[in-house]
Amino acid sequence: MPHSAEFSSVFRGRRVLVTGGLGFIGSNLVRSLVELGSDVTVVDSLIPEYGGTLRNLAGLENKVRINISDVRDVHSLPHFVRGQDYLFNLAGQTSHMDSMSDPQTDLEINARAQLSILEACRLHNPGIRIVFASTRQIYGKPDYLPVDEKHPLRPVDVNGINKLAGESYHLLYHRVHGIRSTVLRLTNTIGPRMRVKDARQTFVGVWIKKILSGEPIEVWGGEQLRDFTYVDDAAEAFLLAASRPEALGEIFNVGGTPPVSLKQLAELLVAVNGAGEFVLRSFPGDRKKIDIGDFYADYRLITAKIGWLPATSLTVALAEILGYYRKELVNYL
Amino acid sequence: MPHSAEFSSVFRGRRVLVTGGLGFIGSNLVRSLVELGSDVTVVDSLIPEYGGTLRNLAGLENKVRINISDVRDVHSLPHFVRGQDYLFNLAGQTSHMDSMSDPQTDLEINARAQLSILEACRLHNPGIRIVFASTRQIYGKPDYLPVDEKHPLRPVDVNGINKLAGESYHLLYHRVHGIRSTVLRLTNTIGPRMRVKDARQTFVGVWIKKILSGEPIEVWGGEQLRDFTYVDDAAEAFLLAASRPEALGEIFNVGGTPPVSLKQLAELLVAVNGAGEFVLRSFPGDRKKIDIGDFYADYRLITAKIGWLPATSLTVALAEILGYYRKELVNYL
Repeated sequence: MPHSAEFSSVFRGRRVLVTGGLGFIGSNLVRSLVELGSDVTVVDSLIPEYGGTLRNLAGLENKVRINISDVRDVHSLPHFVRGQDYLFNLAGQTSHMDSMSDPQTDLEINARAQLSILEACRLHNPGIRIVFASTRQIYGKPDYLPVDEKHPLRPVDVNGINKLAGESYHLLYHRVHGIRSTVLRLTNTIGPRMRVKDARQTFVGVWIKKILSGEPIEVWGGEQLRDFTYVDDAAEAFLLAASRPEALGEIFNVGGTPPVSLKQLAELLVAVNGAGEFVLRSFPGDRKKIDIGDFYADYRLITAKIGWLPATSLTVALAEILGYYRKELVNYL
Repeated sequence: MPHSAEFSSVFRGRRVLVTGGLGFIGSNLVRSLVELGSDVTVVDSLIPEYGGTLRNLAGLENKVRINISDVRDVHSLPHFVRGQDYLFNLAGQTSHMDSMSDPQTDLEINARAQLSILEACRLHNPGIRIVFASTRQIYGKPDYLPVDEKHPLRPVDVNGINKLAGESYHLLYHRVHGIRSTVLRLTNTIGPRMRVKDARQTFVGVWIKKILSGEPIEVWGGEQLRDFTYVDDAAEAFLLAASRPEALGEIFNVGGTPPVSLKQLAELLVAVNGAGEFVLRSFPGDRKKIDIGDFYADYRLITAKIGWLPATSLTVALAEILGYYRKELVNYL
């Protein structure tokens, strides 16, 4: 990690709470924090359809406090936030499709629980430093590319509407109540420990499962452009945002690789794997209604303000992911 | 009403549900609908801090169905929406200050209940025509004036964040599920039947109470510019939006008078009343944090698309309000 000396001085011996800490990005972040010497508490609900699994923190069971509970349990929150120096707030419902079939659950987790967490901080630990995981989904279908932080916010699904409310509470509590928060809008994050059993977290997960199972990858459409952030780069954005006062009260896009089409991504994945094939399929109707078309993020603001840059190429990212799941796939199905 | 012949052919004999129908704008709208010959059901919670009071529908007790219940009661909603031709959806928590001291209640009413109402429509009456009452509050502090519908959305309080989620669900359900909804963003609406016992609905209410009680009006700041919509004009915007297919899926600012400063408004109110006085006070600190500064709306879009224009001058509006509360003040304290 390019900033590991700085991070070590910031996080060593500090108390850190990670919601969604058994999930994909959360668990990778927890691994970094443990290496840096933080005293880490993980809160995760282990809802089967979400990203959390104990496997993600395998080997760290005695080095972090793992509390299985749901951020919707409002009475538990004061207990968790009291005495913490940092909160990496990653608990969330991520499936766009699930948000449309069960909108109230998405609202409970992505909006209501966020407000409860912030109220708990305001009342019980107003000095805590928070970094919140938001999403490119709140932009909706881009008016222009790459999408910067000034782009209009027009979410195309219930998930996007509720995540927008969730990030807005964080900024409001900063402005009005002085809660020290930063919002990171993530694009397509990929890496070891991502959900691969279905597309609830990212379609790339399903592709990995298919290619390693010897089945053809199904590419829907194929022409859509996307950028990808390797999870170690994303974790570094969280640590850097928490370390730098310049990030206080800010919203940053966390971008990634230069954009590639889904077809190019499939070709690259087959090439890096050394075997496999893909088929192009037309886009299913129910997904088309909430699809955002091409998307890639302009991340010049986070580079300018706190010096974050993505370091990992797409080829390296895919090689790392394939390497991990060649051994671990059986534990993620 | 300029469109009364059109409205009569649209609404006569039709079944209409008005949530918040005992409130300020809701009750004025219900009065118009009864005159037009609609079969009206009112749902209102009569929460004491909100705008609803039975006095607002005095004389109509035998002409409308009044159901005292809360839109948060999710199981009651299918019963209400079934068989209705129109839904004027005005139930809401309106106090900016209350949204900051009790953010979860604001979320429950302005976001969660709205999603429940839309789900009830989708499942039990997908052909219903909905007009939703949103607010200028979702724009936050203006970048430019007058504020049009393309202005960035940066709410400055919890109320604005939740109302934004509420209106976003309405538009999303139109786009994805074909629910026929229109969003009206209201500015400062004033008129008979507004709440006057405190500033939870509008500061103008308190001014009316003070001046009619022979007490000096307290003007906070005084330089801020505001526009005002007379409630009959606002009610006409709801009826017109429901009548015109051109309004489907649209967001419209409902504007009003040319902007005046609060000090000018106080001077005019004293002049129209023929007696009274006001004092200028500095803005209280807790309100300053969520104040939006100058605001007035650009309403050219609703004029162009469906022909709505405000018809009532500020002088006439204030005269009507004073006339109403000279008789009725005792029933609103």
